[in-house]
Amino acid sequence: MKVLRWGICTAGKISQDFSNAICDLKNHKIQAIASRSLEKAQELAGKVGAETTYASYESLAADPNVDIVYIGTVNIAHFPLCKLFLEAKKHVLCEKPLGVHAKEVGQMIDLARKSGVFFMEGIWSRFFPAYDKVRSLLSNGEIGDVKFITGDFCYDGFSIGSSHDKSLGEGAVYDIGVYLVQLATMVFGPNPILVQGVGGLTQTGVDEICSITLKYPNHKIASMVTCIAANSNNVASIVGTKGRINLLDSFQALSKLELVRGFPVPGMFEKEVFEFPHPCSDRPFNYPGSVGFQYQAQAVKQAIDEGKTEHPLMPWSETLAIHKIMDKLRHDVGYYRPDEETEKEKSLLN
Amino acid sequence: MKVLRWGICTAGKISQDFSNAICDLKNHKIQAIASRSLEKAQELAGKVGAETTYASYESLAADPNVDIVYIGTVNIAHFPLCKLFLEAKKHVLCEKPLGVHAKEVGQMIDLARKSGVFFMEGIWSRFFPAYDKVRSLLSNGEIGDVKFITGDFCYDGFSIGSSHDKSLGEGAVYDIGVYLVQLATMVFGPNPILVQGVGGLTQTGVDEICSITLKYPNHKIASMVTCIAANSNNVASIVGTKGRINLLDSFQALSKLELVRGFPVPGMFEKEVFEFPHPCSDRPFNYPGSVGFQYQAQAVKQAIDEGKTEHPLMPWSETLAIHKIMDKLRHDVGYYRPDEETEKEKSLLN
Repeated sequence: MKVLRWGICTAGKISQDFSNAICDLKNHKIQAIASRSLEKAQELAGKVGAETTYASYESLAADPNVDIVYIGTVNIAHFPLCKLFLEAKKHVLCEKPLGVHAKEVGQMIDLARKSGVFFMEGIWSRFFPAYDKVRSLLSNGEIGDVKFITGDFCYDGFSIGSSHDKSLGEGAVYDIGVYLVQLATMVFGPNPILVQGVGGLTQTGVDEICSITLKYPNHKIASMVTCIAANSNNVASIVGTKGRINLLDSFQALSKLELVRGFPVPGMFEKEVFEFPHPCSDRPFNYPGSVGFQYQAQAVKQAIDEGKTEHPLMPWSETLAIHKIMDKLRHDVGYYRPDEETEKEKSLLN
Repeated sequence: MKVLRWGICTAGKISQDFSNAICDLKNHKIQAIASRSLEKAQELAGKVGAETTYASYESLAADPNVDIVYIGTVNIAHFPLCKLFLEAKKHVLCEKPLGVHAKEVGQMIDLARKSGVFFMEGIWSRFFPAYDKVRSLLSNGEIGDVKFITGDFCYDGFSIGSSHDKSLGEGAVYDIGVYLVQLATMVFGPNPILVQGVGGLTQTGVDEICSITLKYPNHKIASMVTCIAANSNNVASIVGTKGRINLLDSFQALSKLELVRGFPVPGMFEKEVFEFPHPCSDRPFNYPGSVGFQYQAQAVKQAIDEGKTEHPLMPWSETLAIHKIMDKLRHDVGYYRPDEETEKEKSLLN
């Protein structure tokens, strides 16, 4: 079996987690790590057994021993870095959000198509075995006709000192709301007929909270909320005419779900619980569930081995659709990127 | 202690439950039951020990031995019956929704004010001891600054053969969504700065599903969903900067809540559970939790004994505000009452 040789760009917290998750996987190798701080790259390389370190991203792009680059930088850097690596004909797995508006995402996808390499936004949730179970319950009609989805994903970014820097492309929808949106598009498809965000901005000008409503044909609804000023339960429910699936214990890195049927009163419902414990690892992680990056890495490798440029569980068309939804949500809350100021002015005139 | 003598109008399922809940309470007496079907009135009277039965509501209104009337009819009849009993200077406890639009509700309140009697919409949830606990956790600042509320209340009305008759004033928001709205107004107050409903109609023309978004100053949000085509978990969460309160086991007839602090990952949060079991009763009930009507009846009696015309936990101003919110939600989904057709035409022109 061919080994997939990863280049890691850069050495921050999420890249550390990704590297720690996959460095002991069979047939995966962390080949090189690039960071503007060579010291940070070397420190991480030592921990995860990478051969090479670079103080420049261009050098990583030029490394002939790197097959695929994982991009774990701040959001605003995803666009230029995806371009850099895609033009160098590296496969690319880039953290969510892929871009800070859909225009960027469209350009990246065009470039990936032209380069003929594998390219994917790191919506890792979809690759957890628990998500396989969700999809199989849905496709087997276990909950009948799905009527709506609820979900919340929120964390207290203020008290953990997380930055909400507009210049870095941050904000609730991009940081975590994207997981709610991808759940809706996974269940109902990429094309809602209505997208509505209600919320408000932080003092730094990014979305602090956004209530997300998506409407699909036959009045199917996704009704969800994301926020970076409080910790919520981070659960989701998919509700159908014959039952409901509750995605528990942090739905974005899912390890536990319930299939429930009946009225929600003790004695009047039946519940089946499915557990999919995360892989074991003694390595240190910054974020809960990060060991689950293994699932995504393995799925990416399989797709590449099969000669695919897109992963069927996270195709380009859906990535683009998710970003168009996020643009609308962001604009509804009043969050425009600097190069969207004209659109903002137009919206204020309407 | 003075006994409160109840007149029950009419003898349907919800009136049966109310009567069964309170008939064994000290200092409460079911004095009379009125139904167009005298037989049904007599059957219920036999079960709950009522002295008198009437085949006309006017006779109930004229009964000098009746202090207060409980109205448990179809929604559309609440307005004329409230008028009837308020004009007869009876105290009135009327099931939710008090009216089928806010104009009716305003007129009823004016009439109650004029008559000087006690008058309340039967938002029974607020009188459960578990709701007292919720209010005390909130006022003690246990969860800090409340940022948002989520909640769902849905049941499968189609499979239980429930009618969704527009001519009777039915629909998701009125039947059950009202419980979500009252939770939001209880926590955030009666005056949202934005009310938005997204959903769709049944074939009979009432709202089958409505995603409810309320926005309050300082971008506080209530993001909720109601539906009469599927059973949901029927839970709610109140999320603040220091923690969250999960209202479990059917939040509208609450018996169990959790106070949770921390990130929602096993080992990273602490949880305190509070249970307030419903009163014991051997009597038969049609709906889950109906024995909890006892709490509301006792609260109503106390208010009347204290000479109040409004209950501080469910004041007229808030009832009116809730109905204005429900009107907007209903209209957003496309559900207009026959006497609102002009408004509908206007909205279609805009």
